[in-house]
Parts: sequence; C-alpha cells; structure tokens
Amino acid sequence: MSNVRRFVRRIFRSVAGLPLLVSLLFWAANAPAQQDVPFSERTGYPVAPQGLEIPPLPDGPVRYKTAEDQDIRVVVFAQGLTQPWSIAFLPDDVILVTERPGALRVIRGGELDPDPVPGLPDTQTGGLSGLHDIVRHPDFDTNGYLYFSYNRPDGDGNRMTVARGRFDGESLVDVSEVFSAAEGIGSAARLTFDHDGMLYVSVGSGQADAAQDPMSQRGKILRLRDDGTVPDDNPFVGKAGYLPEIYTLGHRNTLALAVHPGTGDVWQNENGPNGGDEINVLRPGANYGWPIISLGRTYPGPWQSREFSREGFENPIVYWTPSIAASGMTFYTGDALPRWTGDVFVGALRMGEIPGTGHVQRILFNQDMEELRREMLLFDLRQRIRDVRQGPDGLLYVLTGEDDGAVLRIEPGS
Amino acid sequence: MSNVRRFVRRIFRSVAGLPLLVSLLFWAANAPAQQDVPFSERTGYPVAPQGLEIPPLPDGPVRYKTAEDQDIRVVVFAQGLTQPWSIAFLPDDVILVTERPGALRVIRGGELDPDPVPGLPDTQTGGLSGLHDIVRHPDFDTNGYLYFSYNRPDGDGNRMTVARGRFDGESLVDVSEVFSAAEGIGSAARLTFDHDGMLYVSVGSGQADAAQDPMSQRGKILRLRDDGTVPDDNPFVGKAGYLPEIYTLGHRNTLALAVHPGTGDVWQNENGPNGGDEINVLRPGANYGWPIISLGRTYPGPWQSREFSREGFENPIVYWTPSIAASGMTFYTGDALPRWTGDVFVGALRMGEIPGTGHVQRILFNQDMEELRREMLLFDLRQRIRDVRQGPDGLLYVLTGEDDGAVLRIEPGS
Repeated sequence: MSNVRRFVRRIFRSVAGLPLLVSLLFWAANAPAQQDVPFSERTGYPVAPQGLEIPPLPDGPVRYKTAEDQDIRVVVFAQGLTQPWSIAFLPDDVILVTERPGALRVIRGGELDPDPVPGLPDTQTGGLSGLHDIVRHPDFDTNGYLYFSYNRPDGDGNRMTVARGRFDGESLVDVSEVFSAAEGIGSAARLTFDHDGMLYVSVGSGQADAAQDPMSQRGKILRLRDDGTVPDDNPFVGKAGYLPEIYTLGHRNTLALAVHPGTGDVWQNENGPNGGDEINVLRPGANYGWPIISLGRTYPGPWQSREFSREGFENPIVYWTPSIAASGMTFYTGDALPRWTGDVFVGALRMGEIPGTGHVQRILFNQDMEELRREMLLFDLRQRIRDVRQGPDGLLYVLTGEDDGAVLRIEPGS
Repeated sequence: MSNVRRFVRRIFRSVAGLPLLVSLLFWAANAPAQQDVPFSERTGYPVAPQGLEIPPLPDGPVRYKTAEDQDIRVVVFAQGLTQPWSIAFLPDDVILVTERPGALRVIRGGELDPDPVPGLPDTQTGGLSGLHDIVRHPDFDTNGYLYFSYNRPDGDGNRMTVARGRFDGESLVDVSEVFSAAEGIGSAARLTFDHDGMLYVSVGSGQADAAQDPMSQRGKILRLRDDGTVPDDNPFVGKAGYLPEIYTLGHRNTLALAVHPGTGDVWQNENGPNGGDEINVLRPGANYGWPIISLGRTYPGPWQSREFSREGFENPIVYWTPSIAASGMTFYTGDALPRWTGDVFVGALRMGEIPGTGHVQRILFNQDMEELRREMLLFDLRQRIRDVRQGPDGLLYVLTGEDDGAVLRIEPGS
C-alpha cells in the first residue's frame, strides 16, 4: 500500500481525524509540482536534457594538475574524425583509427590522411552500426595481422563480423573473415587477445533475456582461436545446450576488453542501464548476471532487479552508480606519467544520463586489485570519451565519441 | 586462490610448462609497478591525494547553464564562516548559521554579524565535535523554538545532545536540554520534525557492529516527542531488548534528514565507506543494513560485505558509488527556479575519495519516486558542500564545509 494511502487510513482512524484530513488536503494541494518529464514514445525512456553547452576543443595544450600530483598536458593530436571508435599503433609512427560510419583512417607522423584507407570489406552503417574495434594480432611483428569488427551486410540486416587483414602502408590487404555472429546479431564488438593468443569477442545483449540463454551468442564474451575456431578448452565445450564459443554469460553491452598485464586475466567493462556500469574480471564459464541481477534502474525508473547481487552470479570488481557510460579501458604500464603507472583508465561517454558530461576516469587499486579511489579527468572538455589506449610512446591516447571527433593525447605536464 | 597462483599451477601442469614459466617470469618482471600508496598508520586508510588546487571563491556572481535549461547564477551570500554546518531562516530577514567549532552566527539583512550569538550551552569542540544542526520547531511561528544538536561535555568526554532555545534578536535564550545520548556517544546529529510534530535525531554508528544492536543508540535514527520523551507509537515500544527511542537501525553516518513534502516520509542520507552512499526512505522499525550489508568497499580495499543487498534489509532509493560524501538534502518546492521544482538536492563533500571535488547534486525523480537522472552542479568551485536548504525566498542556500567557509546562494540566472 502506498504511503499516502496508509496515511489517509490512519487519519480516518485517529481521534484527530478531521483536522488531520484538512491538513492532508492542504499538503496535497501544496505538494511539489513534479516536473513534466518528457518521455520518448519510441523508446519509453526519458528524453535526455540538452541544456549543457559543449565548448569547442582547445587549440593549444591544456595543462591540468591532478589529484595524484601528476601534472599533465592534453593536446589535440588529430581531429576531424567522425565517431572514432578504436585505435591501433603500428611501426614507423603509423596509427590507424576506425570511424564508426565505416571508414578506416591513417595518421602518419601525426598527420591525418584526408582519404580513408581502401580495402575495408562492405560495411553496413547507420545508427550504432558500422566499423568498430581494431587490434593487432599478438604476433603482429611477424605476421602483420590486424583484426577488426564491423557489421557485415546480410540479407535485409547485418551480422557482427570479425575479419583480419594487413596494412601495406596504403591499403588494407589480404582481408579474410575470421568469425561471423549468428544471423540477426549486429552489435558492436570489442576484441582482445590474451597472453595465450586466444581471441575474445564481445556480443551485446540485444533482447533482454538472451544474455542468460546458453544457446544464444547475445550478451556473451566469446573465446576463439585466431582463426575463428573454438578452442578445446573453452569452459562449455561438449556441454549439451551450450554454444561452445561462449566464455562468459550475462553481460549487457560491453564496450571494453583488456588483458591485465600482470595476471593475464581478461577484464571487461559494460554499460548498465541507469546505474550499474561495471568492470568485471572474466573467469571462464562465469555468469555476470544481466538481466537477472543488476546494480541499476531501468531507464523509465523501476529497479532492474530486486537484489543487487546473488549467489551464483559474479559481482563486478568496480562499478558505477550513477552510470558513466563506460567505454574503453587500458592498464597504464608506461613511465612517461610516473604517478599513474599501474593505474587503470576508463573512458566515460557521459555522467549520470546527462549529455555533455563525458570524461576520463583513472582508478587506483591496491596490491590485491581492490579499488582505493577513482578520479575524474578532463571533465571540463565535456567530450564523450569512446576509448583510452596506451601508445608505444607511453602516452595515453583518448578518442572522443563525437561526430566531430578527435584523438587527444595525455602527456606529462612538465 | 589468487589468480596469479592459479596461473602458475596451470603452467606446471601444462605440456608447454617451461616456456610458459619463462614467459611468466618475464611478465612478472614487467608487471606494472604498483604505485606505492601511502597508508596512514593511525587509521589504516590510504592517505588522501592532495594534488588538486582549490580556487578561491569568486568575487562576483557566477552564471551557469544547467542540463535542465535552468539558467542559474551563484553568489557568495556570506563568507568568513568556520565550518558552517547548518542554517535556519527566521522572520525579518534573519538567518542563523551554526559553526562546528562551537559558535552560532547571525546574518541580518545579508550582513554577517562578526560576533557570535551569545547563549549557547558549553560545547566540546575539536575534530568533528562541536555544534551541528539547527532546525525550527514546527510551531516556531507561535513558540519561537529552535532545536540544535551539539556535543555536551561529559566527564572526560562528551555526549551528543539536543537542546532548544529562542533567539531574541541578539542572544539565544530560554535554553533547555531536550535529549542527551547515552554516555560516550558523541557523534554529530542531524535533526528534523515530521508533519506530526515528531522529532527525528540521527546517531552515528561509531564502533562497527553497534548499528545492528537494538540496545545501542549508535547507528540509528531516533524518534522523539518535541520534549525528548518517547512516543507511544514508536515501532519498538514495549519490545524486550529494544531501546524504545529507536525508529530505524543499521545506519552508518547520517548527514541529512528531510521530510518529503508530499508523502510526509522522513528521508535520510548517509555516507558509505568507500562507495555506497545512500538516500533512504525511512520506514518505522526497518533495518538499513550497516555494517552487515553495504554497497561499498572498506577504505583499505576489501568489500564491506559479500552481498550488496539481502532480504530483511532495506535498499536505498538512491545510492552512489563512488561515494560523494553526501551531506545535506532538501526537497525543492519553490518556483524561483522553475525547471527544478520537485527535484531533490544533496550536498557532496567530495567525489570518490579525492579532496577538492565537492559539489551539489540535483536528482530528478518520476511520479513514483524512482530516480531518472542526477546532475552535478558547481563542480568547478571545488568546495566541500555541507548543506543545501531552500530559503523562504524560494532560493537555494548552500553551505561550504570549509575552514574558510561560506554561504552560497543559487538564484535564477535571468
């Protein structure tokens, strides 16, 4: 029974019923007028507020003092990119950046080539679809392979696909398909290779319950050999009713995969709904709970689940409420920014359902990988941050997930 | 078993054991050097980083555009206050502000009287002790009573005490004690009166388990009549083993109490440890879980509890991870800031264990009191925010919890 109804009942039962009823009517008349929050008819979600102004990116370097006494300066390394999604560092000062609307871009010696790199397979774009992640094969130095994820046209729709190719300096060549998701599965995939040379591929959850369905690829992290076949030691190989490519289950939408340099564990981050973004340490065969267990609310308001955690489901190692729309993750192992060595960096597309609040987050752990604190960085730039990666120069490269996107670089301040 | 040990075991058991062992040694040698995080010998907690610079308060009004298209301007209404903790609005443009180090200050027509208000009872100060909350009696207009909480000297220590008095324009007079906590309980108390004229008093948790102990006042919200006696309808009256003054149990450190203007429910907020700050809607006799159930980690790192929630313990209506060190809360019912009418405002002493990140948060709910979104405000001022209250003019008054403290006022921007 609602609190108001319970209160009204008490009034009628009490000796002082009438005066109290009069008071109740008075309060009701003066109850704070709830804001008329517009909801989208299409999604059922509240329409996002749009009052914050996004400043233009600075022309020159911006200096910051940070909490950890790590002076930094941030430069715009490259701009004029459309929804940059991922970045790969090649020899000879060559950098490749994916643009979600279906283009691969190359930066040579700091100069962005105005023309996209030829050789990409046919890609379906629009909305969240297109070209997504790009990573080097562990033996890139000998085989030159780059792996990338994109939406391959398929009938009326598309399929999430992982392909590999080589960059010959001008074009993408020797392109072949490695893995394609089941029909109709068109989410954006993050990729990573572990220290054993196994390939991990994330699949978004799509329809809510599929993340728990062991016969669906949705809402899973898959583990494959570098040729797209299933390794014999996958946790569910040979188990009836389980797709053998599944490594972990119960994920909502994964926007980062990264391997811990010390332990070799695969770390992942995923977006909760309204609250409940997570970093998870992946254990083979484990279930991360979505949609049964979540730390967040649904967008229209009610809690996603009655409990925040439950036996049998893995808790995150780090989580955020409110959400930061986490995207991208890197373990910083360089020494150019010495106060940050050993810390984890995550991109934030926004903070708490408010557009114009993107930033970078730095997380400090103790020796047992238990979080001690988190720091917001670059908040004043108000850029949606899609990815954060460490470059071979030991600096941090940051992609803004904007239509007028950029690569920012975090350098030591002095 | 730790991930590293598990991995080493796998190496020895595998066919490729030796090369993998060599790799492991390589990785271990190159594992990211963990930052040497200093821990306080006294508390066992990590020493807080101190790298951020706090800018001086602005001289003139600062204008902001906000996410909700509510243009605001923020002015420094009064400054030169030492750790201001609470604020009460009296007729004739008189405002009283408590200073934690044991002084009551008066602002008349916007002018801060340099001399403290005489008449305060003897108060023990130092550290977190001193003078804390001040609120008007519901019938203030007829009886002139102000209720305040402070630490009354008691033997070698002090006791949290609630007293009342009147302000005669110059001094606090007719002061009498209303309630005193049990011996040795010296926490800071928030106070509020509900629509029935009952007085709620918060007590900090102190030693960890006492919040669950029904024979201790620690970690509780108490419900009393305005004369300090126990109302007959308190939830545990007559129950053996339960102190009758207890309204709710299982709270860590409460820094806000406020009554929802529509429902009449008492809302509370409390600081989690490292993560897990909460807003709770108080139900009589309910248990809010501390320290058995918490959403946060302990300061040295390990999770406070294995589960984030459990049957029999109340979940918060809003929570924060990372912590914002929530302090103060108000329901905005005015119309001077029309886009914010119906929203809840909370003060944040800091964000995520980083000094210099205090701010104000605005929370938007739907008609069912389910949170839709949160917005950070005034973040660039970097002030620890201790309290947020609506003034009789429908503007928002904000106290900075600083040694060089101020009262800020949020006004419409245009």
